[in-house]
Amino acid sequence: MMVLYSYWRSTTSYRVRIALNLKGLEYETRSIDLVAGAQRSDEYAALNPGQGVPTLVLQDGSVLTQSMAILDYLDALAPKPALLPADPLARARVMAAAHTIAMDIHPVNNLKVVGRLKGEHGASQDDGVAWMKHWMTEGFRAYQALLTLDSSKFSFGDVPLLCDICLVAQLYNAHRWGVDMSEFGRLLEIEKEAMKLDAFQLAKPEAQPDAG
Amino acid sequence: MMVLYSYWRSTTSYRVRIALNLKGLEYETRSIDLVAGAQRSDEYAALNPGQGVPTLVLQDGSVLTQSMAILDYLDALAPKPALLPADPLARARVMAAAHTIAMDIHPVNNLKVVGRLKGEHGASQDDGVAWMKHWMTEGFRAYQALLTLDSSKFSFGDVPLLCDICLVAQLYNAHRWGVDMSEFGRLLEIEKEAMKLDAFQLAKPEAQPDAG
Repeated sequence: MMVLYSYWRSTTSYRVRIALNLKGLEYETRSIDLVAGAQRSDEYAALNPGQGVPTLVLQDGSVLTQSMAILDYLDALAPKPALLPADPLARARVMAAAHTIAMDIHPVNNLKVVGRLKGEHGASQDDGVAWMKHWMTEGFRAYQALLTLDSSKFSFGDVPLLCDICLVAQLYNAHRWGVDMSEFGRLLEIEKEAMKLDAFQLAKPEAQPDAG
Repeated sequence: MMVLYSYWRSTTSYRVRIALNLKGLEYETRSIDLVAGAQRSDEYAALNPGQGVPTLVLQDGSVLTQSMAILDYLDALAPKPALLPADPLARARVMAAAHTIAMDIHPVNNLKVVGRLKGEHGASQDDGVAWMKHWMTEGFRAYQALLTLDSSKFSFGDVPLLCDICLVAQLYNAHRWGVDMSEFGRLLEIEKEAMKLDAFQLAKPEAQPDAG
């Protein structure tokens, strides 16, 4: 069975859990407690030189890192349901929306980045939260502006795609830190649709074995 | 002809320029002066809601944003030379290395992020440079640890792939800001090989029409 090194509150781990569930792939979770610094142990750093989660270890021992590269692999391993449209232009649009979150929000709000803002640059806890909220608000605005359909269940149609996976995982963080969602009604509707699906429900942070 | 909205020093624009050149695709450059704030004009924000570069406008007027999604599209449009291996596992490894730069370094060092560090959190110019150097050093260590071949010309063999494109563009920034490269000899060798190719030479920041 595949082994997913994951942390319950990590939104990148959350993305991979959703995809594994959507594709019906079985996996075993091993918790890496980011707050306790488990990602920096020698053993884990040998597995994942970036010292982050998730890491996916395949049945044959092959090690995959970086959540978006893992999602690309899973889409090749188990092509249905597809995470991206087949048409190159449609695919590029879904990917661009996904990257609005995966590139423009998540990395800047990563635990280690906010930690450095506080540790090296004297930011308070409140400053750190304001920093995270700022990038989420900006990123959600860009995401919402990329959507072309007003009434589909998900961002680009009636099935969840790569961008919806990134969005739903990021919305967990938005709620956690109290982002004002009043201008993002469309995104909340997408989240509500997603939460009707077992693949999303079972991937939720609160449903994980290491949830605190 | 395709139109690339680009800024000479933007490493994400640099990535797309390299790929267009490698694939022999003709394009016209339109400069968006990030330092002057041209990316925030109403006209440009309508084209690219993330208010960043690059944006690629196809001959039929279709608009593509997010550099990594643009590279994915170009790889479908002009499959040779391929930017990623065909084997899913090899592909995931090259993509993970690319994302070590595209996710873990670049977004955190983005102009708007470092700008906010200085503007809202009182960081000095020196603090901002130290911040950028820190994430580059950490990211380059992770990148180098992911490489499995010691003597190939590029990161995963003798042809440049997606990860090499991201690496070479990021190294421009590393030199610009004075990152200590003494532990990254392998990466400098890759850069040297890349610079023997016209596709990289012509994409260099200094070779752009808007170079200052």
